[in-house]
Amino acid sequence: MNTTKKKQVPFTIGIDVGGTKVYGILLDHDDIILARAKKKTKEGTPEAVLERIKTLISNLLEETNTELEEISGIGIGFPGPLDPTKGIVLEATNLPGWDHFPLTQHVSDILEGTPAFLDNDVNLGTLGEALAGAGKGASNVIGIFLGTGVGGGLVFNKRLFHGTSGTAGEIGHMIIQHGGPPSPRNLRGSVEGLTSRTAIVQNIEREIKNGAKSLLREPILSGKKIRSSALAKAFKQGDKLVVRTLEQTAEFVGVTVGSLINLLAPDVVVLGGGVMEAAPEAILPIAKRVAKKIAVPDAWNNVRVQEALLADDAGAMGGALLARQKIQIFADEKNDK
Amino acid sequence: MNTTKKKQVPFTIGIDVGGTKVYGILLDHDDIILARAKKKTKEGTPEAVLERIKTLISNLLEETNTELEEISGIGIGFPGPLDPTKGIVLEATNLPGWDHFPLTQHVSDILEGTPAFLDNDVNLGTLGEALAGAGKGASNVIGIFLGTGVGGGLVFNKRLFHGTSGTAGEIGHMIIQHGGPPSPRNLRGSVEGLTSRTAIVQNIEREIKNGAKSLLREPILSGKKIRSSALAKAFKQGDKLVVRTLEQTAEFVGVTVGSLINLLAPDVVVLGGGVMEAAPEAILPIAKRVAKKIAVPDAWNNVRVQEALLADDAGAMGGALLARQKIQIFADEKNDK
Repeated sequence: MNTTKKKQVPFTIGIDVGGTKVYGILLDHDDIILARAKKKTKEGTPEAVLERIKTLISNLLEETNTELEEISGIGIGFPGPLDPTKGIVLEATNLPGWDHFPLTQHVSDILEGTPAFLDNDVNLGTLGEALAGAGKGASNVIGIFLGTGVGGGLVFNKRLFHGTSGTAGEIGHMIIQHGGPPSPRNLRGSVEGLTSRTAIVQNIEREIKNGAKSLLREPILSGKKIRSSALAKAFKQGDKLVVRTLEQTAEFVGVTVGSLINLLAPDVVVLGGGVMEAAPEAILPIAKRVAKKIAVPDAWNNVRVQEALLADDAGAMGGALLARQKIQIFADEKNDK
Repeated sequence: MNTTKKKQVPFTIGIDVGGTKVYGILLDHDDIILARAKKKTKEGTPEAVLERIKTLISNLLEETNTELEEISGIGIGFPGPLDPTKGIVLEATNLPGWDHFPLTQHVSDILEGTPAFLDNDVNLGTLGEALAGAGKGASNVIGIFLGTGVGGGLVFNKRLFHGTSGTAGEIGHMIIQHGGPPSPRNLRGSVEGLTSRTAIVQNIEREIKNGAKSLLREPILSGKKIRSSALAKAFKQGDKLVVRTLEQTAEFVGVTVGSLINLLAPDVVVLGGGVMEAAPEAILPIAKRVAKKIAVPDAWNNVRVQEALLADDAGAMGGALLARQKIQIFADEKNDK
């Protein structure tokens, strides 16, 4: 392997494997995305996903007139429990056949030995935002993603922090209202139980069933799935029930953010995910006001709380940046010897 | 400076400056405390504290037949806001004359240039426990100290984590029961407002004024200050009000610990401070049971939750270990060049 050449052209590829699509980017050394590509995940077996990754990468290389040997590494984001050190997917909640699948080994094998790295999708979304999105230039960044559930990630000194068990960043399972309303995992008052889209929709549904008026009344009573975009539309139209519910959600987000600022004193807290992308103006101002009240002044004066900037690119961006970091660490260790 | 010799005898001294006493230890390279010394803080001006530090160190050296040149560094723990990087005390809540006092510079000056380092007392207590106490052998350790207030510290990869503003570890100011009872800093439901000795005594006092029976009835109604030892004594005698109050406190401690395990996935959570030292059996079993329910299984299976082991030595131990770490980093950087 010609490491000198690789160091001159440290292009990397990031792949975000999701339940519905596999999404990839090719990143240059200045954090510029040179190309994007995506494929439907479909059957989602390891073989099918590997095939899609291979095709995606071919597309990215073709589109940019790049050779595979100019790619120094590939970083892959995957949902669900995995071992990032060994590059093994432990299981995949919504995809079949992934029990202890050595994903990075297989990806590397089908791509002429190009090094591959693995981490979970939320961690990589946080890393992407931290280094090339909302947190650009910062060292310590917390990512909070409000969607069906609530995911989180921690970047300290520009690196992902995994903790001892590898599970660090489970912000959704922190308790912010002990004794509060029921939450997932038989808890009460967890961040996820108070701020996920699932929780928001459940609150709206309950009030509607109790007779509250809302633009969402008909779709909810007819059993339609309420997406973040529908919430955002109703919010923008001034729907009182939706406005009130999102304001309450924002308050809980603020409590979470304020507590995390006191604990970790980061440069940036990035808020992302479907709920935030659909209606940042519903969440961000209230969340900041509440967080400011909780945070100790020194920490507050050194932090930015802001919305995510990379949208669909975040996870793949994090993958590409993870690959670059790992290759760099590898090169540094080699030089030390 | 003979660095080769210093590396052969990396003895360090740790000093813990408190509101009532200045406490010091001399530590050998195997984490053995060779000597302890203490002095009353008394007037507490910088000049007086410096004089006491000088005397303490003389005592430590004499007792162990050690020369000052055999000491590679001195680590000092100090209460209140400070700048650890510059070694400057920003202010001291209960001591006069400390506004922006460059403590490490002065300590180094009166000790023939021996390098001195500074951090806050709770951080150093956590570092001491993490590396040489309850967390010995671990990489990632969270310290929670329940006393008049609630202090916290974070050790990641065997190093103190300060965050961007330097204030990281303010566990006492995290919110675990949004909308809950009043807490310090005009908050509601903060860890400090629910688990400090101050909160415990206030709860007991309120119930006694409402007519509850308790062994603490007479001392509380006569305005006596209730210390942790008095709480522990009443608990051991089965005082129902005290038992109930400490059980409730323990539940809140468990909520805090469980949430922190989900966020940071540490090896060890160390519980210390006056309340814990007086009656660990009142807090620890319930806190562990509650934390286990909250923690995600992978993180729980990799963590130990246990009481602090070093008692009064913790802060000074952390100081001595901080000095050793800093000297080591300095030596490594020099070798790299």
